[in-house]
This record gives sequence, C-alpha cells and structure tokens, in this order.
Amino acid sequence: MSYNTFGRVFRFTTWGESHGPALGAVVDGCPPGLALSEADIQPFLDKRRPGTSRFTTQRQEPDQVRILSGVFEGRTTGTPIALHIDNVDQRSKDYSEVAQAYRPGHADYAYDAKYGFRDYRGGGRSSARETAARVAAGAVARLVIPEVKIAAWVEAIGGDAIFYSRFDEEEIARNPFFCPDAQAASRWERKVDEARKAGSSLGATVTCQASGVPAGWGAPLYAKLDSELAAAMMSINAVKGVEIGDGFAAALATGEGNADPMRPGADGPQFLANHAGGIAGGISTGQPIWVRTAFKPTSSILTPVETITREGEATEIRTKGRHDPCVGIRGAPVVEAMMALVLADQKLLHRAQTGR
Amino acid sequence: MSYNTFGRVFRFTTWGESHGPALGAVVDGCPPGLALSEADIQPFLDKRRPGTSRFTTQRQEPDQVRILSGVFEGRTTGTPIALHIDNVDQRSKDYSEVAQAYRPGHADYAYDAKYGFRDYRGGGRSSARETAARVAAGAVARLVIPEVKIAAWVEAIGGDAIFYSRFDEEEIARNPFFCPDAQAASRWERKVDEARKAGSSLGATVTCQASGVPAGWGAPLYAKLDSELAAAMMSINAVKGVEIGDGFAAALATGEGNADPMRPGADGPQFLANHAGGIAGGISTGQPIWVRTAFKPTSSILTPVETITREGEATEIRTKGRHDPCVGIRGAPVVEAMMALVLADQKLLHRAQTGR
Amino acid sequence: MSYNTFGRVFRFTTWGESHGPALGAVVDGCPPGLALSEADIQPFLDKRRPGTSRFTTQRQEPDQVRILSGVFEGRTTGTPIALHIDNVDQRSKDYSEVAQAYRPGHADYAYDAKYGFRDYRGGGRSSARETAARVAAGAVARLVIPEVKIAAWVEAIGGDAIFYSRFDEEEIARNPFFCPDAQAASRWERKVDEARKAGSSLGATVTCQASGVPAGWGAPLYAKLDSELAAAMMSINAVKGVEIGDGFAAALATGEGNADPMRPGADGPQFLANHAGGIAGGISTGQPIWVRTAFKPTSSILTPVETITREGEATEIRTKGRHDPCVGIRGAPVVEAMMALVLADQKLLHRAQTGR
Amino acid sequence: MSYNTFGRVFRFTTWGESHGPALGAVVDGCPPGLALSEADIQPFLDKRRPGTSRFTTQRQEPDQVRILSGVFEGRTTGTPIALHIDNVDQRSKDYSEVAQAYRPGHADYAYDAKYGFRDYRGGGRSSARETAARVAAGAVARLVIPEVKIAAWVEAIGGDAIFYSRFDEEEIARNPFFCPDAQAASRWERKVDEARKAGSSLGATVTCQASGVPAGWGAPLYAKLDSELAAAMMSINAVKGVEIGDGFAAALATGEGNADPMRPGADGPQFLANHAGGIAGGISTGQPIWVRTAFKPTSSILTPVETITREGEATEIRTKGRHDPCVGIRGAPVVEAMMALVLADQKLLHRAQTGR
Repeated sequence: MSYNTFGRVFRFTTWGESHGPALGAVVDGCPPGLALSEADIQPFLDKRRPGTSRFTTQRQEPDQVRILSGVFEGRTTGTPIALHIDNVDQRSKDYSEVAQAYRPGHADYAYDAKYGFRDYRGGGRSSARETAARVAAGAVARLVIPEVKIAAWVEAIGGDAIFYSRFDEEEIARNPFFCPDAQAASRWERKVDEARKAGSSLGATVTCQASGVPAGWGAPLYAKLDSELAAAMMSINAVKGVEIGDGFAAALATGEGNADPMRPGADGPQFLANHAGGIAGGISTGQPIWVRTAFKPTSSILTPVETITREGEATEIRTKGRHDPCVGIRGAPVVEAMMALVLADQKLLHRAQTGR
Repeated sequence: MSYNTFGRVFRFTTWGESHGPALGAVVDGCPPGLALSEADIQPFLDKRRPGTSRFTTQRQEPDQVRILSGVFEGRTTGTPIALHIDNVDQRSKDYSEVAQAYRPGHADYAYDAKYGFRDYRGGGRSSARETAARVAAGAVARLVIPEVKIAAWVEAIGGDAIFYSRFDEEEIARNPFFCPDAQAASRWERKVDEARKAGSSLGATVTCQASGVPAGWGAPLYAKLDSELAAAMMSINAVKGVEIGDGFAAALATGEGNADPMRPGADGPQFLANHAGGIAGGISTGQPIWVRTAFKPTSSILTPVETITREGEATEIRTKGRHDPCVGIRGAPVVEAMMALVLADQKLLHRAQTGR
Repeated sequence: MSYNTFGRVFRFTTWGESHGPALGAVVDGCPPGLALSEADIQPFLDKRRPGTSRFTTQRQEPDQVRILSGVFEGRTTGTPIALHIDNVDQRSKDYSEVAQAYRPGHADYAYDAKYGFRDYRGGGRSSARETAARVAAGAVARLVIPEVKIAAWVEAIGGDAIFYSRFDEEEIARNPFFCPDAQAASRWERKVDEARKAGSSLGATVTCQASGVPAGWGAPLYAKLDSELAAAMMSINAVKGVEIGDGFAAALATGEGNADPMRPGADGPQFLANHAGGIAGGISTGQPIWVRTAFKPTSSILTPVETITREGEATEIRTKGRHDPCVGIRGAPVVEAMMALVLADQKLLHRAQTGR
Repeated sequence: MSYNTFGRVFRFTTWGESHGPALGAVVDGCPPGLALSEADIQPFLDKRRPGTSRFTTQRQEPDQVRILSGVFEGRTTGTPIALHIDNVDQRSKDYSEVAQAYRPGHADYAYDAKYGFRDYRGGGRSSARETAARVAAGAVARLVIPEVKIAAWVEAIGGDAIFYSRFDEEEIARNPFFCPDAQAASRWERKVDEARKAGSSLGATVTCQASGVPAGWGAPLYAKLDSELAAAMMSINAVKGVEIGDGFAAALATGEGNADPMRPGADGPQFLANHAGGIAGGISTGQPIWVRTAFKPTSSILTPVETITREGEATEIRTKGRHDPCVGIRGAPVVEAMMALVLADQKLLHRAQTGR
C-alpha cells in the first residue's frame, strides 16, 4: 500500500515522479501563526539541488518552491500547506532499454512485481528527486522547533572517513561534500572524480546531530523517538542502515563501557558520555541526538551488469545518463529534513499528552 | 504521545508493566478463519521465557497465554484477538534506591522528564517483559504468512561473532544462545558466565532472515518494507542499530560491488547476490530478507556508576536484582516476532492495493 | 478491516464478545499524573449495567472493572491503561437456531458474508455488551476534560417525546429511562412494559449535551468536531442517525432563522441562539455541544420473521432469550462515553497544534 | 489538529483556500493499472462547478483539473496521484468588514478562537470551494469500484420535498437542482429565486444511494461502514445531520416494523425491505446503501445580523458578495464523491483482511 504520508500529528504527504511535470508536499497539522514564506524554504532546497558541482548529477533543476496554501499575510494559518516544485529539466531521452530490462539494484524489478508495470522515466517515484519534497517540508518543520539546531554531514565516502579531531562545523558549507573535515574533503574530491570518470559510484555514511532537544520527547515503545527516526531515515532512497548513538558499536561494549553517567548540572543533569545518542527508553534525555545512516552506492553505473528483460530473457545493462556518483552526498540535507520532520511531530505529540 | 499500537491494517496494541498483575496484546485486523489456539502461541513464548538457563534473568515466569476474544470454535473470527499473560514472579523488593536515583542507561531519567513520575518497579513499561506481548502477537502474525519462514539468531556477543561457514540452522535451538555455530556457542557460555559473575553485561547482534516472501510486498517510500522493519526493530528495548542486507558495509562498496545481478530463473529471476537484503526501492524482490540489529549491553550492572537523585544531588548506583547479562540473547525470538508482524501487515496492505 | 481502535492521540481499543470469558479496553495516550482507580470507572458502568430494572435485559452482569496497567500509586503513568471486565452470566443456551438461520435486522448475514462464519453466541462481537468497554474507557476520558460537563438523556421512546419545558436534569438519575421529564418517564414505563410483554421492541432518540467546552477544539474538515462525533455515535450498535445542533431541522430553515447572533459577553461572545449545536466550521464555539442520535428498535423480537438459513433455504425465526425491549435506554451512558472520548482526543489534538 | 487526510488505505488529502492560487488533492493507495485521465474527472467537477445557473454562486471557475503525478501512459501507477485545480475568479474585494467582524453561522469566530487569526478572504479553508478537491478525488475513487453505481439527489429544499412516486433518475441531470422529480424542480425554481432575490438562503436534504455494493464491506464497530459514511458526510461544509436507511424514523418504529425479512433469492438473499439502508452490524448486506444528509442554509445572508468585532464590540453584519442561495444543491455531487471515497477505501480494506 502506497502510504506517502509520514508523521502522526505534524504530517506531510509527498507526490511526484522524476520526469513528471512537478512534485510537491502537503504539510498538515502545522501550528498557526508561524512566519513562513518561500524564502524560508529555498535555502534548504538549494543545498540539496542537483547540478551545483561536478560531484552530483548534471540535471539542471532550479527547484523553485511555491507555497500554494496554508499561509496568509506571511503566517501559517494552521491549515494544510501545499508546496509545489516544477520539474524543468526532463531531458528527452530514449528509455527503451530501461523500459525493457531491469537495472540491478534499482527498484525496477520490484515495482513491476508489485504494480504490474512502472513509470520507467528516470526511476519515476523511486528517483531521488522525491527528496526535494521532503526537504521543502523539512524547512517548515524547522520553524516548529526553533529550540533545536540540526546539522548533518557526510562522515565517510567509500570508507574514507573524516577525523573528528578535525571537525569544523563551518567547513560543512564550504565544500561540495557537506564534509566537516577540510582534509577529507580534498581527498574526496579526487576519489569521487575517479568514480565519476570510471562510471562507477561510491557509498557513504551521513551523520546527523540535533542539539537543543529537551528531555521528554518520544515514547516508550512503538513511537519511540529512535523507532521514528529509524523509520524516517530508512525511508530515504538508498539508505540501508541506521544507528542511534553508538549503534552497532554498542553491541561490542560492556555495560560499564556503555553507561552514560550523570552528575548534577546547572540545568538538569550533566552527562559524562553520550553512548545512547540522546535517547533512553525511546525518550530524549536532553543530550544531543545522534543518528548515523548508511547510503549504498548509486546503482546506476556504466559497467555492464547481468540482468533480465521484462520477458525474462538474459541480457546486460549499463545505465547511461545523468547520475550522482555518490548519492550519499546530497543525502545530508535530506537527513537533516527527516530529523526536523520527526522532531516537530514528536514535539507536538509530547505537548498533546503532557501539555508541556 | 504513547502510541502503543503498531501496524497499519494488521495491527497490535500491547499493554502492561514489569510488576503489574498482567500484560497483554490486542491483535486487530487478523484475517478470519485461521486455526488458532493457545498451543500455536505458547512455543514462541517458551523460547523467549526468562529463567530457562543461567544466561538469562532468574525471574520465574511461566508466561502462559490465554486467548480472551476473537477466536470461535478454534478459528479466528476477524474480530480483535485479546492475548493475556499473567505476571507471577513479581518478587517483593525494596525499590527505594531506584525510586530515588536514576540508573544511567535506563529510561528512568527520561520517563521522569516526560511524565513527571514513573513506575519504578522493575522498569515498569520499559522492562523487557513487554516483549512477551509482542512475541504472543507475532505468533498470530505467523499464521497470516504461512508462505514465509522466519529465523533469527544471535550473530555475535560482545564482539565475538559466529562463522557463517559453520552456520547450522538446527543448532539454533540446541543451545541457550540461539546460536547457529556450535563452537561460538561454547565460547559464549564462558564469556556470558564471566560477565554474569562479574555483575557486568554484554552487547550482541541479532540477525533475522525471512525466506519465502514473494516479490512485491512493501511500498516506495514512507511505508517502505525496510522503513517498517527499521521502525519495528528499533522499537525493541535495547536495540540501537538496524541494517538491511549489507547495511553499513554497503557504504564501503562501489556500485559494481553492490549490484545484485539477475539471470533468468525457473521461477522469476535468479539473483547472483543479495547485497540488498531482499528489498529494492522499498519493495521485496523475492530474495530472502535480511535484517541485522544491534543490542546494547544491559544497563543493569553491579559496578557503581555516578548518577543523580530525583532532587538533583550527586550519588552512585549499582543495580542489584535479577537481570539478563546479555539481553540480546532473548532478543532473538523478539526480532522474529517483529519480522512476522511487519510481514503480515505488508502482505495484507499489498493485497488491499493490488488484489493479489 | 477490523479497526477496533478509535481516536487520534487519545485512543482506545476494545475487544471481547458477548459470550466470551471477558471483554475490555486499552486506553492509550492518556496524560500522566491523573488520579485514577476502579472507583472512578465503576459508577459509569453501573449506569449502563444490564439487569437493574425490568426495562432492560435480565442478563446479570456485575461488570466489575479491573485496571491491569498504566496506573501507579493511584495515578496514570502515561502508558497504556488496560481495563478488564469479566463476563459472568453467559447462560448456557441452545444456539442451534441462530447458528443456522439469519435473524433479520441483526448482523448475522452480514458477518457471514464478510468473514465466512461468525460467533453466533449472543451476537458475538456485535452484541451491545461491547459498549461496556467503551463506557469504561469513557470514564478515563472524563478525567482528561474536567472542564466539561456531559449529560445524555433519552428524548423519546417509540416517538413519545419529553417536553423540554419539564426538563429536570436531576430527574435523569431518578428513573430507569434516563428521562429528564418525570411525566414522560411514567408514560414510558407503561409503554416499554407493553412492548416487553408483547415480545416487541421500541426505537428511541438519545440527546447529549456537553457544556464547558472552550472555543477552538476541532478542525476545519476531515477531523471536524462534528465529523468525529458523527463517527463516534454511529459506531454505537443500533444507532442509525446523528444530528448536530438543529440537525435535520436546519434543512427546513432559512439563513435568518438559522443564524446564531452574537453580542459582547462577559467572557467572550454571548450567543443569542445555538442552532449550530456549539460547532461552526468544525470547531467548537464555546456554546454547549448538542448531539442527537437515533436508536433503532432491538431486532430481537418474539414475532416470527421470514428469513433464510445459512444454506439459503426459507424459514422463520423468533428471537427468544434475554433482550432489551428498547436498547436506546441503555444507550444514554454509551453516548455520554463516546462524547467524552471524542472531546478528550480533540482537547489533546488542539493542544498539540496550538500549545493551548 | 488539522488532519486534512481522509481514509484508511485508499486515502486522500486536500489543500487550498477559497482565494488562494489553487487547490488540490493527493490520492494515495490507489490500485495500479486503472485507466485514468483528466477526462475521467472533469465531468464530475463540471457538475459541482459554480456559476452554471442563477441558483448557485456567480463565481466563474472553470475548475479545470490537471493530474500532476501517479499516472503513466494513461494508467495509474500505484503511487500518489496529485490533482491540481487553479483558482481563477478571486474577485478583488474589500474584506475589511469580514476581517473585523464575525459572521454568525460562519466559521469566523471559531477559527479565530482556535488559530488566533484566519484567512478571511472568501472563508479561506472553510469555503465550499474545498469540495472541488473532494469531487476530483471522488472521481478517482469511482474507478476503484466499477461494480458500484452511485447517485445523489436533492430531496427537499426548505422543507419542500420530492415525491418518490415521481422519482425519475434521468431527471436528476436535467435540472439545475439535481432533483429527480420534475414537478418539485419547477417549484424549487421559484422558491430558490425568491430566496436569492431576498438575499436569504435555504436548507436542503440530499440523499445518496449506492447500489451494487456486495455484502461484506465494512467492519463491526469503529470502522463500521455507517460510521465511516457518517464521518464522511458530516465532514462536508454545512452538513448538520446524517441518516443511514430509515435513520431517525427508525427511532419511531417497533422491531416488527423495522425488520428487513429475507427470502431465498437467485443470487443471495432477497430482502423484503431495506429499513437498514443496506448496512447491518456495520457491514454491507448487498442491498442498496442509503444515506441522507441535512444541509443548513448558507450563513451568508443580506439581512443584518447582530454580531461582535474581533475586539469584542457590538456591531451588525450583512454578507455581500457571491453566494449560493442554497448550498445543499451543489452538495449533491459532493455527497456522491464522499460515498465513492468511503466505498473504495472499504473495498480495499475488506480485500486486505479477507483476500476477497
């Protein structure tokens, strides 16, 4: 079942395909009275926008957002906010090969198995273009949680990781990789260039931190803050793994090593560590929330891969056209958006139940 | 907000605390006409049951399930199925220390921050006892997906991993660790014993495979099969990471290395690899589904840890009482249950939309 | 699809059949810290309880409620509240006739058509006994909205209506009909007795007023306060119509006649009329909320009615056994409960979005 | 909380205000492979369109719908279908009076109370213009239930009702009142003209029948078919009452008079009456489904009405501008749309649970 809506009380619905006329999001449940205009959204879309460096797809999309409802005299009214982005650069192309054969690693075969056919132009609904709608919705979500500061960065490309000793948050915006370590960024330049020229692709990990989240957001079990974040991140195309705090490293630890001791602090407890990533028992502790995501390498590569046609016959396929050599790079603004969307929802849910 | 319900059309709601009189689940949306009695559920509860070896908590709970509604003349009626499990061994104990000071790594502080107070007896709602209700519900879910075979096993304890070359599915039921590698199981015996005697605890990873899932279950984005599985697994107490297929290893790969080439097969495509873990574009491909989860070490340890009291004063706490030295071990049946619950829901959702 | 859960953030799930061992409700999303014990719930169950006068079914059910979770030291914890009511008087009876032939007006045929079979003992899930679970949940909901006063009464039985000029709220609790007009109550005594002795049954209308609801609860469209109330009331067994404010009489009016003019008041506007029933544009106005419901006559009658067997052959059926001669009478406490459940949910939703 | 989404598995979300640039709907969960183009939707919008006779508002809106996603090569893909309708005739007007004073009967005061302010241009979100989006979504829903035939008609205007002895379904499309009784239509012409000229308005009842619904759609309680229909109809602006089958007349009946006896029929049971309106125990019986709705008179009238300003001072208001003298007339296509939307959802839910 399709279910293109995410969230419980702050909810958004996205629609649109890679090569359709437009795509968009409807944001529902937004608090009234927030100052909102296109200028609050556009900077986030610009960060995610393709074609801004040679390290992303060369598709040229201005990704200009228009607000079609839910805002009056510059403020949100509390009614649904429709966000609309035109597709501009749907380059005419011969799709006959993709229409006939399944690209391994892509959604082609699974879509056909589910729906009986598919929109094969540029991946249709499974294209990373859909994430523009999330980023737009995420910009609205940020207005709901002004107390929270969210930053995501690429932590590693193809296994080449940053050093946290060289972490510089300012640096993230200075290079085309959302990389907080200037040295890593310059290494990645060569690395991604090589992959791009070879028609290959690289995986990446993206880490996101949200600070300023007060203690108390979340819930004990099926709406645990970590469960919601895991669903949100795993809903991003190409994400194959999610960690909260120490994540898989926690499975290597002992109880002593994994404890986050507390001391009296000026303003609530002072934690001596944050193995838990800011969440205990599904509820925020007031520490920064840490989420790490694994992006697989783009499946679109120039090397021919064995596959089958729709009729079930053996063939080979190479994916020509415009693609991200490392889709994880542009994943950083998308991860930020999903973090904002989950936290906005959880803030309102917490307020619903407790009045705080 | 609480939200103790999981699922979209096959849904279950759990209730109950560690030291309350009982706990249970209500399963809603179950197809009618399925043969169901307590005997279909009890074996799964028995696998998860505490007190069966020295490697788990010594709390003695028979975990006898009763079906209170939704079954008539041995078959499901299509109306809600109430599952009821009495708590038997709520040993009387002095909780004054836990009531006054926050156990680091536990949900104590977060619950107080959210709700203003908490049921401190044995962890209340955040106790792993809640998972008995899920396992009972999961047993019902299995009846909805007879075509699927689900198996979960512990893959590593404290970083000591099995060898897949020695994988023997039969072995899983033969040792108290749900371990498919007999040599690893014997190593773990010593390892967990040491931790137990030292009053320490160990993390673990649990892997789950579901085979027999036909191609087509799932959805493109926010109800992606992998997104649902991530939410389900991360909703289990102590889980801090989730991977689908290669997971974080995919972030190290190139597009060539990560491809799952296809050849014509007798019955749909034959895949030459399964890096994707049986899911592409959020939809099952017909390959086995692989999910890996990271369980942190139990936070209850005998070593004193710095903490604060409810009044914000510095203190130390050691957690006495009955605890699992490695909560990941009993996580295996819970992971299986969550896999079954997600797949049953997705099967019905797929049927809703496509009629297949 | 079953969907035995109602509500958006304050949610409840009911389970149980007429002749099963027990029935119950799980209330989720309740604010923490509310004082709650069985004594807060029992009085409402006692009002709905069968067998208290000769005007209701003679089934003897003590309807003793037990709280199995979600309350600690006398206060709600914010986690799910399990409410449990044992069935006591499932009189052994020969159901072979009901099992074989469909009772017209009952759910028998429809259930068989949907599920392929049914629990025919006393109506199974479609029995009015299910409403005990709602009434218990409704008692919890009342604690969430202490600012609201809810009263429901029977307005007419078999077309014999009260006079509002004789309306006396105190009177409602003094007679077995929840009738606010003493004269009507004494007429109904004879009327219902006649129907009962004749093995016939009577329809009724039940009206409910909620005062103290502040302006602002509800939403513009699909979660309109009136839409939620309509769904809630129509979900009660035997209800076939719902009106808000003037309801169908508004269809006879002109715009002038239907206006609710406003004047400045001490505390917000003073309304000169309440044709709207306290709701405009889906949102409460601060005036009392009025809802009217139509209960059909109990379908269980002694007069033989033409029907068919499960095998499709012609037959006749008379419904012996214990039945309410006018099921609308005991509908009054159920209507009150549904009003409370909707308003509690809407209060929390309003707080989620607006922080008020 | 806003919740502008309706439905459980076949879901739609609407957005847009009376005087914004556009309005629309996103339809999610639609089965794949259905033939769909704008031409399947436009005729239903044309029926609802304003300005086609002097009996409706004179606002000129072409209501041209565009499909922006979810359709490929003329067939639905199973992904979300975005429907877009531009607003064209937002006549510039002085709204200062409406901005300052609350129109009695309108949502003005309630919106301000909830949100702190409101989009006062033409009623904003509370305008009947929103129903265009529902009608567009409803046209998609009809494709999901080709076995069902839906017809709605105006049954009475200002208390002047049709005679069912003169019911002619063909007649409905022949007059501007969706009236199946030619004589009533000619009476209404004069009646509505008088109201229009007097600057007054009239209430109406609209009845809808759905035939061809197989037995078995729906659910026992909170997702009862009648409960869903009641919510759907009551979500339409200006609706104040909903009846299923005999509705409030059932409250006047005896059990004998209200029975729907059955006889063996060629194809399932033959019912001798349909007091139940095609629904028993929340589940369809195979008989035609009957729903009746009450539309209040338009609150916009030329007669001055006492009211207050935003500052709480006494004033009077007359609503100038373009309005429907009887908003119930154009309610007929909207009621049809909501019927289709509920039934499509219920069909898929039934299929999910039972596989049929």
